[in-house]
Amino acid sequence: MSDSIVISLDAMGGDNAPEMVVRGAAIAQVRLPHIRFLMVGDEAQLAPLLAEQPNLAAVTTMRHTEDVVSSSEKPSVALRSGRNSSMRLAINAVADGEAASVVSAGNTGALMAIAKFVLKMLPGIDRPAITSFYPTRSGESCMLDLGANLQCDANNLVQFAVMGEVFARTALGIETPTIGLLNVGVEDQKGHEEIREAAAILRGADLPGEFVGFIEGDDIAAGSVDVVVTDGFTGNVALKTAEGMIKLYAGFLKDAFGSSLVAKTGYLLAKREIENLRKRTDPRRYNGAMLLGLNGIVVKSHGGTDDFGFASAIEVAADLVSNEFLDMIATDFDLLDGNEASANKAAVS
Amino acid sequence: MSDSIVISLDAMGGDNAPEMVVRGAAIAQVRLPHIRFLMVGDEAQLAPLLAEQPNLAAVTTMRHTEDVVSSSEKPSVALRSGRNSSMRLAINAVADGEAASVVSAGNTGALMAIAKFVLKMLPGIDRPAITSFYPTRSGESCMLDLGANLQCDANNLVQFAVMGEVFARTALGIETPTIGLLNVGVEDQKGHEEIREAAAILRGADLPGEFVGFIEGDDIAAGSVDVVVTDGFTGNVALKTAEGMIKLYAGFLKDAFGSSLVAKTGYLLAKREIENLRKRTDPRRYNGAMLLGLNGIVVKSHGGTDDFGFASAIEVAADLVSNEFLDMIATDFDLLDGNEASANKAAVS
Repeated sequence: MSDSIVISLDAMGGDNAPEMVVRGAAIAQVRLPHIRFLMVGDEAQLAPLLAEQPNLAAVTTMRHTEDVVSSSEKPSVALRSGRNSSMRLAINAVADGEAASVVSAGNTGALMAIAKFVLKMLPGIDRPAITSFYPTRSGESCMLDLGANLQCDANNLVQFAVMGEVFARTALGIETPTIGLLNVGVEDQKGHEEIREAAAILRGADLPGEFVGFIEGDDIAAGSVDVVVTDGFTGNVALKTAEGMIKLYAGFLKDAFGSSLVAKTGYLLAKREIENLRKRTDPRRYNGAMLLGLNGIVVKSHGGTDDFGFASAIEVAADLVSNEFLDMIATDFDLLDGNEASANKAAVS
Repeated sequence: MSDSIVISLDAMGGDNAPEMVVRGAAIAQVRLPHIRFLMVGDEAQLAPLLAEQPNLAAVTTMRHTEDVVSSSEKPSVALRSGRNSSMRLAINAVADGEAASVVSAGNTGALMAIAKFVLKMLPGIDRPAITSFYPTRSGESCMLDLGANLQCDANNLVQFAVMGEVFARTALGIETPTIGLLNVGVEDQKGHEEIREAAAILRGADLPGEFVGFIEGDDIAAGSVDVVVTDGFTGNVALKTAEGMIKLYAGFLKDAFGSSLVAKTGYLLAKREIENLRKRTDPRRYNGAMLLGLNGIVVKSHGGTDDFGFASAIEVAADLVSNEFLDMIATDFDLLDGNEASANKAAVS
């Protein structure tokens, strides 16, 4: 048991906590028998839930606290006054070396602020970014930033590209990930200055991944690249737009099949395949956004997720630990021309 | 015939021009018998195409030119050296009062630059914006800017909101359109400064439409508002992301139905409904982006569109003329506190 991986869980974060945290951990544990858990939260609520999951209870340590960061709390307030919150203590466990990574479905802004304060940034990285993977026509890709940084300069985008490339290698298992900068056109002169400058730096960098240049919005779903790099405003809007389109299309499809008896019969015959399609695009499968750039592995689960979705987030955290994500980021930053890109703007020209 | 509407067509713009322009006009003419056309382009190519469409030929005037703005031409070059291009002459016809609007499937940047130079801006509007409408869960909505202005300040966004609201009333026939500012969250403190400032101005403006505040990416497809307002970078990415998702889902669906004999039988039974779904989300139905803010009605067709799509673009142009789009914009700008919003930043506080 001594070389098993410990994952710290903010047991009180998320709309359906703590039930979905405990039940999600139980699902993940079946698939990941080498994982141990540190669950931080209200023992009075956690103990009876754990009693229902004896296998999970056997590999879980509880840490009691009654404080919780609420979903509406401002990040600065959560940072100052939430020192005994389940979120803070779960992150502390990573900083103290007790756990290899932390998963929380709590307030994103607070998680970002506390994690940045407690864990600090990796050398050479100015700002954390949020990434996640999603299904495409050709497999799976990841996109970043999904909302941590609303306005980004060229060096932020370059750093996101490097972090995303390492994420694609460690979490998606892609040996030589392709990287694209999200833009309004593929030609060199398209886009604003920051993005053109970032492209110039990335063209000159010798990364294990392959920078393919600019891509457009429809390349996201097409899976034209493994890593989509963009600022947090655009990335957040694009991700939610895509989720909205899946819901729209599923609704249209339901209307189409419900519209006549013949169509309903057709649906019954094709039901298994339609169910498979639903599973393939199930957002719960893609739950588990990673806060990249921190000196520690922090995975954010969607706040409204259920047991199944929380289990997916735990699996992402476990994958990143097993594949030595943090070491690989450090190595790749050295390839950015001795890490001078962020210090030396002359590299652009 | 004297009070019929004349629409000027850049007959040489677009991948499939001039064939799709002539055939698209023929389709549109059946639905819009009160329209006359001015077709600008190479007579040697146009005459035989028109000969195939005698009904169309009867309401069409040709204007010969051999010059064409290529799809890769820089806007500044097209503006300087394209004075006899089909695009320029088609726009000139609107400025000269010969035509009520112009439709082109040519180079977007060139169209924008030439139209701005020839037609000028409407009073009170600093920059043109591109808008288009699209299918949603609850009907149809429009979004702007779709790529004319990559970086926008608060006043640009406010002007887009007013123009979009008028577009929704004239092109979509919505009496009191709802307007939302695209953001990364709905709470007041979310987003960057420009967008929060724009929200403050719009909350204080007394428009015929209803400003509902911030919306998120998934509200686009849900149709939560009639008018989605955003900067051109985000709007362009969101639109193309949505288009990409429709393709992805359609592809997944095809896979699902092709996967077994039983599923194929189900498809055959539901075929009509699936075809209806395809039609409902057919991007050709939603072809025809409008360049808003100009002192003239300019409709941009997708460059790669076919006959059917070009006909849709002509219909958009006809609707805007019939519903007196330009007059209504002027009226609504007066409601923005005597049009001081763009001149007087104090209005923000």
